[in-house]
Amino acid sequence: MTQTFSYQHLFEFVEHIFIKMGCSIDHAYRATQVLLNADLRGIDSHGVARLSGYVRQWEIGRLNPLPEMKIIHETPSTATFDGDAGLGLVVAQEAMKIAIKKAEQVGTGWVAVRNSGHFGIAAHHAMQALAHDMIGISLTHAASLAAPTHSLEKLLGTNPIAVAVPALTQPPFVADFATTTVAYGKMQILQRQNAHAPTGWAQDEKGGQTTNPHAPKEGGALLPLGSDREHSSHKGYCLGAIVDILSGVLSGANFGPWVPPFATSGSTSERQPPIGLGTGHFFGAMRIDAFQPAHEFKQRMDKWIETFRQAEAIEGKRVLIPGDPERITEMFRKREGIPLIEPVVEDLKALGDKMEVDFFY
Amino acid sequence: MTQTFSYQHLFEFVEHIFIKMGCSIDHAYRATQVLLNADLRGIDSHGVARLSGYVRQWEIGRLNPLPEMKIIHETPSTATFDGDAGLGLVVAQEAMKIAIKKAEQVGTGWVAVRNSGHFGIAAHHAMQALAHDMIGISLTHAASLAAPTHSLEKLLGTNPIAVAVPALTQPPFVADFATTTVAYGKMQILQRQNAHAPTGWAQDEKGGQTTNPHAPKEGGALLPLGSDREHSSHKGYCLGAIVDILSGVLSGANFGPWVPPFATSGSTSERQPPIGLGTGHFFGAMRIDAFQPAHEFKQRMDKWIETFRQAEAIEGKRVLIPGDPERITEMFRKREGIPLIEPVVEDLKALGDKMEVDFFY
Repeated sequence: MTQTFSYQHLFEFVEHIFIKMGCSIDHAYRATQVLLNADLRGIDSHGVARLSGYVRQWEIGRLNPLPEMKIIHETPSTATFDGDAGLGLVVAQEAMKIAIKKAEQVGTGWVAVRNSGHFGIAAHHAMQALAHDMIGISLTHAASLAAPTHSLEKLLGTNPIAVAVPALTQPPFVADFATTTVAYGKMQILQRQNAHAPTGWAQDEKGGQTTNPHAPKEGGALLPLGSDREHSSHKGYCLGAIVDILSGVLSGANFGPWVPPFATSGSTSERQPPIGLGTGHFFGAMRIDAFQPAHEFKQRMDKWIETFRQAEAIEGKRVLIPGDPERITEMFRKREGIPLIEPVVEDLKALGDKMEVDFFY
Repeated sequence: MTQTFSYQHLFEFVEHIFIKMGCSIDHAYRATQVLLNADLRGIDSHGVARLSGYVRQWEIGRLNPLPEMKIIHETPSTATFDGDAGLGLVVAQEAMKIAIKKAEQVGTGWVAVRNSGHFGIAAHHAMQALAHDMIGISLTHAASLAAPTHSLEKLLGTNPIAVAVPALTQPPFVADFATTTVAYGKMQILQRQNAHAPTGWAQDEKGGQTTNPHAPKEGGALLPLGSDREHSSHKGYCLGAIVDILSGVLSGANFGPWVPPFATSGSTSERQPPIGLGTGHFFGAMRIDAFQPAHEFKQRMDKWIETFRQAEAIEGKRVLIPGDPERITEMFRKREGIPLIEPVVEDLKALGDKMEVDFFY
């Protein structure tokens, strides 16, 4: 059962909650944009369903609503940015702005972020580059839920990669994916449905095959993209590792099993003492015309997209361009509203009561 | 059956072949370094086994032994580099040098390459950054052998990603992997053995499951990392696409199904007319101390590596660090020599006869 809400309704509610937490009006507005963008794009696990988690982080003193974010080190094309334990949703936007500004000046900009928190959907931040005729890149690590190939220990998060590339008449290419076979949200859906998971999504406590969607919480782990050694899970492990090294080791944040859990992610451990500051991210912006005239590139990108979209497909299927499904969902939900499942609606109502923000205006 | 040759013996032979092709002594030496490095590291498919392919490219006039490589566009942190149809093995080294030089000046350097050819193993080029206390990145597309998720058409190559990260007392982290479930070389091994492939490596001509290792040549295709939609092959498709866009669309090279085949890769098609210049690559170098003091980072990287290497493992297994297996093979082969299978030895002998270079000094 779902109930549908207008974008505007949810926006105002979420914004008020952030303001009640003590965020500035500007930060509350921008954090809400990222969160609601997830719901619009159909990434329901990263939208308003997470709001009560952010509030819990604030309640336990892990989230600073009035952060003094600052660049702590920089070169013409790079910066290391400290989020001062602020909302990752806002810290990430500031960091991406710096990357874009540096790209304007010297062709590309790269920003490693420490002392941040969960930043919402990776694609949102990568897509900020598009309007500037830049390629945007957005990486973040997350609390450890996945086992490297052959490991029994969970040492990596779902560590997503997002890359956004502008085109001319075609919509942009927007890839955004976890480097595990599936994101944990897919397991949670199966948990609610009391259903089995396909093999290859998780391992059990001995590293064996399992269809138990609770396995990652019962001594097992999510598996890296590739699922098993025969299907090259070591490549998914490499990808998750690269994201962790850039987001965590290079920025001065925590890394590996030390990455702090998101309040509602159901993460398993937060090793003490920490080995760095908070959660980390890594952003990049590359000016197209630092390589070739932007118009020419975008024409070529149109050709790339058209070639792939028109490819002969398996019977009954179509070849999709990364970003297609989310864009279509966004068009639909902007018009028809955002459907929320019952537990999320209940969660928001309870949150409204607690924070004294009316959910029904 | 294999026969073992010393590094030095093979080096001199290969170098002479390149010189006979008309390469300068400098280029012949550097091309040989990359090719032999593949054999040393155990990536036999990318070493001397490919030499006759480079010669064939030269014979059919596709390879310019005396290229005038040049930067055709640049900003402080970027360059677009034209390889003038030279040996990819050398063009890639020049491009990586530019990336490193730009990183020295402004923190990072990024070079898109057009008009090149097969560049050998991706890791070799990424690893050039290590001695400069930089993170190195090396991407290349290749002739199309893989079908995007749901496609019957082969539109992407095995499009590898390599990332090298320096550590302090630990050996460096070196990831280098195809973005398909397996590289085509693994299929060729099975073809020679007349053996079946696991399902999930390739699809047949209707997009169905197959264990036929010849499938990619018989109307089928390699599959992107993830193997099928249920195990997130769309993520492998995204990765291959990102590599193709940066290497091909951004550089001005060909892209997608237009990427030229390597002479011996068994590639399927070269669409005419071409849509750009030759094969493309993309390189990056990021100075560690553009983000944090290099010594501090390398200590943290040691900790990362130790944590992962010491993780509790599945019974009878160990958790490996990307680059471990290749480094161990390299140590062994430097001492014991490089084993070559019979068909490769025969190929080299025939090549020696044709080019009038004695294989047995």
